[in-house]
Amino acid sequence: MAQNASWQDIAASKRAALAESIPPEWRIPKDIFPPEDQLDVTTFPEGSAWFTKRELDITSRTAPDLLVSLRLGMMSSVEVTKAFCKRASAAHQLTNCLSETLFPRALERAAALDAHLRKHGKTMGPLHGLPVSLKDNFNIIGLDSTVGFVSWVNDPATYNSTLVDMLQAAGAVLYCKTNVPTAMMIAETVNNTFGRTVNPLNRSTTSGGSSGGESALIAFGGSCLGVGTDIGGSLRIPAACTGIFTLRPSFGRFTTQRAKSGLGGQEAVNSVNGPMGRALEDIALFSKVIVDAEPWKQDPKMLPIPWRRVEQRQTLKLAVMYDDGMVTPTPPVQRALRETVEKLKKAGHEIIEWDNKLHERGLTILGQFFLADGGKSVKAILDPVEEPFRSEMEAYSKCTELGVHDMWQLHLERTNWVKEYLDQWNSVGDLDGILCPTTPFATTPNGNFKHVGYTGVFNILDYSCVSFPTGLNVDKAVDRYPEDDWKPPPIDASEVAQIAGSVRAEYDADVVHGMPISLQLVAQRLEEEKVLMMTSVVLEALKA
Amino acid sequence: MAQNASWQDIAASKRAALAESIPPEWRIPKDIFPPEDQLDVTTFPEGSAWFTKRELDITSRTAPDLLVSLRLGMMSSVEVTKAFCKRASAAHQLTNCLSETLFPRALERAAALDAHLRKHGKTMGPLHGLPVSLKDNFNIIGLDSTVGFVSWVNDPATYNSTLVDMLQAAGAVLYCKTNVPTAMMIAETVNNTFGRTVNPLNRSTTSGGSSGGESALIAFGGSCLGVGTDIGGSLRIPAACTGIFTLRPSFGRFTTQRAKSGLGGQEAVNSVNGPMGRALEDIALFSKVIVDAEPWKQDPKMLPIPWRRVEQRQTLKLAVMYDDGMVTPTPPVQRALRETVEKLKKAGHEIIEWDNKLHERGLTILGQFFLADGGKSVKAILDPVEEPFRSEMEAYSKCTELGVHDMWQLHLERTNWVKEYLDQWNSVGDLDGILCPTTPFATTPNGNFKHVGYTGVFNILDYSCVSFPTGLNVDKAVDRYPEDDWKPPPIDASEVAQIAGSVRAEYDADVVHGMPISLQLVAQRLEEEKVLMMTSVVLEALKA
Repeated sequence: MAQNASWQDIAASKRAALAESIPPEWRIPKDIFPPEDQLDVTTFPEGSAWFTKRELDITSRTAPDLLVSLRLGMMSSVEVTKAFCKRASAAHQLTNCLSETLFPRALERAAALDAHLRKHGKTMGPLHGLPVSLKDNFNIIGLDSTVGFVSWVNDPATYNSTLVDMLQAAGAVLYCKTNVPTAMMIAETVNNTFGRTVNPLNRSTTSGGSSGGESALIAFGGSCLGVGTDIGGSLRIPAACTGIFTLRPSFGRFTTQRAKSGLGGQEAVNSVNGPMGRALEDIALFSKVIVDAEPWKQDPKMLPIPWRRVEQRQTLKLAVMYDDGMVTPTPPVQRALRETVEKLKKAGHEIIEWDNKLHERGLTILGQFFLADGGKSVKAILDPVEEPFRSEMEAYSKCTELGVHDMWQLHLERTNWVKEYLDQWNSVGDLDGILCPTTPFATTPNGNFKHVGYTGVFNILDYSCVSFPTGLNVDKAVDRYPEDDWKPPPIDASEVAQIAGSVRAEYDADVVHGMPISLQLVAQRLEEEKVLMMTSVVLEALKA
Repeated sequence: MAQNASWQDIAASKRAALAESIPPEWRIPKDIFPPEDQLDVTTFPEGSAWFTKRELDITSRTAPDLLVSLRLGMMSSVEVTKAFCKRASAAHQLTNCLSETLFPRALERAAALDAHLRKHGKTMGPLHGLPVSLKDNFNIIGLDSTVGFVSWVNDPATYNSTLVDMLQAAGAVLYCKTNVPTAMMIAETVNNTFGRTVNPLNRSTTSGGSSGGESALIAFGGSCLGVGTDIGGSLRIPAACTGIFTLRPSFGRFTTQRAKSGLGGQEAVNSVNGPMGRALEDIALFSKVIVDAEPWKQDPKMLPIPWRRVEQRQTLKLAVMYDDGMVTPTPPVQRALRETVEKLKKAGHEIIEWDNKLHERGLTILGQFFLADGGKSVKAILDPVEEPFRSEMEAYSKCTELGVHDMWQLHLERTNWVKEYLDQWNSVGDLDGILCPTTPFATTPNGNFKHVGYTGVFNILDYSCVSFPTGLNVDKAVDRYPEDDWKPPPIDASEVAQIAGSVRAEYDADVVHGMPISLQLVAQRLEEEKVLMMTSVVLEALKA
């Protein structure tokens, strides 16, 4: 690349190199390549004869299931890794979900793990031989972590993120990194380097963001376990858009050390990372394995709280929040909430209604935290190659930097608000959790995602949250607004009222028909074990 | 007070009201009042006939000891409280250590506790009937929390600090609050409202700061258990200056919620609170009682980590830091370190030397955090009554506010530094703790305290620290600098070199002769249980 290459040239060259890194045997043959107007590409692997039965079998299993087969030698890590590399390659060609590949390294590593098991009869760790995908911002030596920024292209990491070291020490095989939006601060996955990742279930819709490369990959079957990050909903929104599971842990459980950020040094609300998978077992497995590895011994920001056993509960007391008082969820999400509540009641759980009175203020504070540096951090990364602000990042180009004194006042406001929230929780008495939407949508057409309020408020609170697919899907026959006299908000309505209006006006049941509907279950801070247990209890009730 | 009263008038009136709040029977009779030039006033209670034997007995016991007597009904809470109110009153008259008294309320409460025990045969909680003193910044409904600021005089709290509620729920009797320096940001205890608190062991020296009202009170016997706070050494420095024990916990164990601060909203380094007492048992008792009360259920910043049992260890591996590379300790502290190391080795403990290479950078970062708002917070509290900056606070009047972007860069620098420190710790292998000075001094003449480096660095790290008296005292016969060719640093030497020079030049063995010498024991973050255990092991070795 010439020294004075334009950002467009650098980006184009990076995209070409990524495409080139997929070996010819994993490039989808032209004659079976799904046409551009085929919306659902998740049918491709099963539908074409391009994948072997064995490859389909491997890539459709849960992570714990694969680990048993790997441990028993019924599958080799090489064949498991190859199957996922191939399926991830296909996912990328159909959804643009990857940012980096390291297939040769992965296969070499898998072979070494296989040899170790053969020689010693013992695994290298609890994730022995399992391919794990990672969001782009995790550093792996020798690979870029562009976080969507063109100026970070061709700047390979010289060290691993701590989580990368931990996963490798646990025996995992890292094989690809996945696309993110610029700075990871957009709720869809689109940037000027790699372009847009789309939802494999319906390519006219978004896979969410910012961990939307990961969600597209996993929903396609190109990974059984991936790691994303979340500072305002970046794990939960993409999980919900694609119907997979994720855990947003409280800060302090899974290490975020030495990963890249678009807002480096921003600590008022901490980014966390968490697992994404197609089954609750996948994310539970990751959680226990990582905490069992005692991340606090390597990352001084982590908490020395071991993975705690919690008993499965027969009955839960849950508060349901149907609406956050800002943006009413679209009809499918409303229906999923109602039906879930009905089934929970039927199963004997106690359901009360959650008062949303504190939510709008929480979301306002979150936005102020993100913009507190006047967008300087983002600008400093865009500038070296004159990459422009994307329109989705407009707020970062227009905001004013706070001084530290004002920031301290904002901290105080947050501290009081978090205490008010806890008091509200305690006032209920024996409340186990909150059930609410993850987003107002099942998913949205690309470019239309709005409102991170259902997730972001819990980032300020640092509560433990799971987004889970309810098993329900959008049904255009029923998921419609009532024929009432609704009118768009007046032109002088508040910003949030405008957003609420757009969400309603833009809803199109035909577009999202058939898409999975997810909900969010929220426990208190540092209750990761409990929120996973509660999700299992809720899933049980939903199945009944 | 007239609306346009000067800050001097307001302060004088506040001091008068405080003096007036001491009932006549607890004012030291003029004929036995120690003369102003009597330096050591700790001999006063035993030496005069003004205290009864019973009062002396009560006020010389440890907190756990008193609790047993209270529980068994061998002492009533009223008599215990009276004894401490009287001794605290004397302490104040001799050292100026109090900021607020609430004796009538305390006695009423004590009577209620006694009645409860008589009636039900059960205590109200684990601190049933025990008087506990509190640093001025804890809010108690109806009392000021001036934190030394004149503008905060006559502004009684309308709510309790969460710790106050917890102590009361545990059965404690609150009876006084203790003096602090302005904004709690000076390492001695002096402010424009109450003036200076002096060291009861030698009134020409400082009781340290910022919890120096508390340390003077406890060292005098006016409290058996007090609570202070620490953001750069504010528990440990006063504990060391007066030869008592304290635990600086990591943030997240004991709640700081709803207490007052001079730097409200400053979160880059968190203030913590911790117990102060004359015995290790006193501070261990507080620690377990508070954590057992599950503060995380009331304060969302607290961590759900129960009080963990740790086994007493036969041998420890400790790193000793004789010098932080900035300010060499004065001769008594050097000797205490050497003698402690010798005894530890003799007792079979493994001692290595700690490389101080990271300390100066840590202290620099700490200073930048404190001054990041350009002193605006302090100024905003001084301004309403035109109270001037004290000379000790000069830095706050001259610093420049950072923008949030620069603050984020400072966060990153801190994050990297903390990781480097952890890596250094891990590189030793099986290191249990660091043994080092708490301050360069036993204590210093009033106004001469310098260098919070030995404590402040561990605030940035958020490590668990105990300051403990070694049982050794300054001996002017031996605690002298060698007669060498030492010269003061040149006029163009660095600030820290100037400080080191002053510390050496100002050392006067005659002044501090006989004063107790303390040291600091440091464990890692959130290892409160372990650092208390280690202190007990070290004390054992020192006694041998």
